[in-house]
Amino acid sequence: MEVVVGIDIGGTKTKIGLVNREGHCLENTFFRTRDYRDFDQYLDKVVSTIDDLTSKFPQDLHIRGCGIGAPNASSKDGTIVHTANLLWKGTLPILAKLRDRFPVRSKITNDANAAALGEMLFGNAKGMKDFIVITLGTGFGAGIVANGQLIEGYDGFAGELGHVDMTIGDGRRTGLNVKGGLEAYVSATGLKRTILYMMSQYMDDSRFRSIAYNDLHGEEITQAAEEGDPIALRAFDFTADILGMALANFTAFSQPEAFILLGGLVNSGKWIFDPLQTYFDSYLLEVYRGKVKILRSGMPEKTAAICGAAALIWGDYDLEQD
Amino acid sequence: MEVVVGIDIGGTKTKIGLVNREGHCLENTFFRTRDYRDFDQYLDKVVSTIDDLTSKFPQDLHIRGCGIGAPNASSKDGTIVHTANLLWKGTLPILAKLRDRFPVRSKITNDANAAALGEMLFGNAKGMKDFIVITLGTGFGAGIVANGQLIEGYDGFAGELGHVDMTIGDGRRTGLNVKGGLEAYVSATGLKRTILYMMSQYMDDSRFRSIAYNDLHGEEITQAAEEGDPIALRAFDFTADILGMALANFTAFSQPEAFILLGGLVNSGKWIFDPLQTYFDSYLLEVYRGKVKILRSGMPEKTAAICGAAALIWGDYDLEQD
Repeated sequence: MEVVVGIDIGGTKTKIGLVNREGHCLENTFFRTRDYRDFDQYLDKVVSTIDDLTSKFPQDLHIRGCGIGAPNASSKDGTIVHTANLLWKGTLPILAKLRDRFPVRSKITNDANAAALGEMLFGNAKGMKDFIVITLGTGFGAGIVANGQLIEGYDGFAGELGHVDMTIGDGRRTGLNVKGGLEAYVSATGLKRTILYMMSQYMDDSRFRSIAYNDLHGEEITQAAEEGDPIALRAFDFTADILGMALANFTAFSQPEAFILLGGLVNSGKWIFDPLQTYFDSYLLEVYRGKVKILRSGMPEKTAAICGAAALIWGDYDLEQD
Repeated sequence: MEVVVGIDIGGTKTKIGLVNREGHCLENTFFRTRDYRDFDQYLDKVVSTIDDLTSKFPQDLHIRGCGIGAPNASSKDGTIVHTANLLWKGTLPILAKLRDRFPVRSKITNDANAAALGEMLFGNAKGMKDFIVITLGTGFGAGIVANGQLIEGYDGFAGELGHVDMTIGDGRRTGLNVKGGLEAYVSATGLKRTILYMMSQYMDDSRFRSIAYNDLHGEEITQAAEEGDPIALRAFDFTADILGMALANFTAFSQPEAFILLGGLVNSGKWIFDPLQTYFDSYLLEVYRGKVKILRSGMPEKTAAICGAAALIWGDYDLEQD
C-alpha cells in the first residue's frame, strides 16, 4: 500500500499522519512542539514518530514521500524563517535536515498553502482553478491558487493576508506594538479582543463582564451567542463585517471562484457565516456579485492539516524548491 | 514586415498604433472615444483608422493580429462590461464584432493587464515572473503577474485593486456615493481631492486657495511642490502614505519582485516616489524587506498602452478567450 507522510508543524502541536492516495488519513498522532527546544532533537522526534506510525502496518507499506506544512515556511528553499510561533530562531533548513534522517522525496510549504493544495486535491476546491483558502485559528493564514497554481511569490512568502492592514492611521497592535493588520481582528485571538472592545463601547449586560481575558475561549463566545448574549452578538457582527470587507478586497485581487474557510473560528458556524455573507455581498463590487462562493472546508477538521501537507506529494505540484 | 495592431480604448481617447516584434511603435494616432455614441460606428472608426495607418507602409506589411486593452474588459469572453468611463452600456461583444470587420487574430484584456504584459515583453519586467503593474491615471488600475502568468481570476476581472477599501467604517465616496476605495485617494483625481482635504485640515498659505477644483491639474500640483507650497507637499505625503500601505498590503498577497508604476501621477517624480519608498519600507513586513522594488515603467509614455495591447499578440500569452 502506498502512503505519504503528512506533517503539520504548529506552534503548539506537531501532527503527523499517513495519508493514502484518496486523501484518507490512515493513522495519525501528535506531540507537543514546544517540548523540543533543540531543532535537531525535534527532527529526531519527528522521524521516530513516523517510524511508530509505519510500524503499525504490514511490511508492504510504501512511503511515496513526505509533505510538510509549517508557519513561515519558504517553499523556495525549503526553510522555516522568522518564526514568531516557534521556539527555534533564525533560518532553519528543515527540508535538508529531514532528508538526512529520512531519505524520501520531501516538500514543504506554509501551512495555509498546504491547506489550499489539500482542498484542491481532496476537498471542496476539486476542479477549481482560482480559489483562496483562509485559515482562522490562533492567527489568520491564506493559501491562494490562481490559474490552477499556488501563488508562492518571488521568494515563497505570498499569501500573508493576515498582515494586510485596512486601518489608515490607526488600528490594533501586535504584542510587539506594531500594527497588527487583519489578524488582530479576524482570528480566535481577534474575536477575544473584540469581546473586550464591545464591552468598552457598550454597557450591555454580558456573561463576559465576569470572565477575565485569559480565561476566555472561542467555544464560550459561540455558546453565549446561542443564548443571545448581546456582547457576543456584537463581536460576531463586527468580526464578520471586517472579514467581509477583507474577502471583498481579496476578490478584487485575484477574483477567486470561492473562499474556503477553516480553523477554530469556523466552528462558530452561523454566528460568523450568516453576517459574513451579508457583509461580503454588501462590500463586493458589482462586477463580482453572485460569482464568489464562501464555503467551509471539505476535509475532516482533525486531519485536514495532515492531508493538506500530504497533498504536496500526492498532487505532484510544482513548488519552486523542486 | 510583420506588425501587430495595438489598440488602447480609454474613456477620453482611443489610441491605435502598429507595433513591431521588438516593441517599437512604428506609427500611431488617436481619436476621441466620446465622439462615437453608437458602438458599431465606433468600431467602423477603429477599422478605418487601422486602414489609414497601414496605408502608410509598403505593400509587404503583414498584420500578425490585433491586441486591445480596455477598461473592464473581460478576457474570458472578449467583452467589455459595466463601463463607468465609456458611453456604451451593457455587455459589448467587442472581440466578435471587431473580427467581423477586421478578420485577424484578436485578443483583449483590461488596460492594466495589457500594460503588465507590455512591461514583461518589452519593458522593465523582462525576466520577472512575479510583478504588479499599477496604472495611476484618472483611476487606479493593476495588472498582476504571478508564476509568469497574468492573474485573470475566475471570470476575467482580477486586479481591480483601485477598489480595495482600506477604511473600516469611513472613507471617501465615489460619484455614486459608495465607498471609493484606494482609487479615491491614489489617482490623479484622488490627489486633487487631497489638495482640498489638506486645505480643510490646515491653514497653510497655498496657491490652491485661489484655484477652483475644476481648474486644478496634476502638473500644477507638482510645480507647486517644487516651489515649496505646503499644501502640495502635504498632499503628496498623504498620497504616498496610502499608496505605500497599499503596496505593502499587495505584497502580502502575491509577493511580487517589483511594482511597476505608470500613468499621470508618476510624472510627479520624486514628490511621489521619495515619500512612497519611505512609507512602503515602513509598512512592509520584515520577511519582505529589501526584496521588493518600486520601479517606473520602462516604456515610452505616449505609446506604452498601445505596445502593451500589442504584447497580447506578440507575447502569445494564454488568455482564457483563446
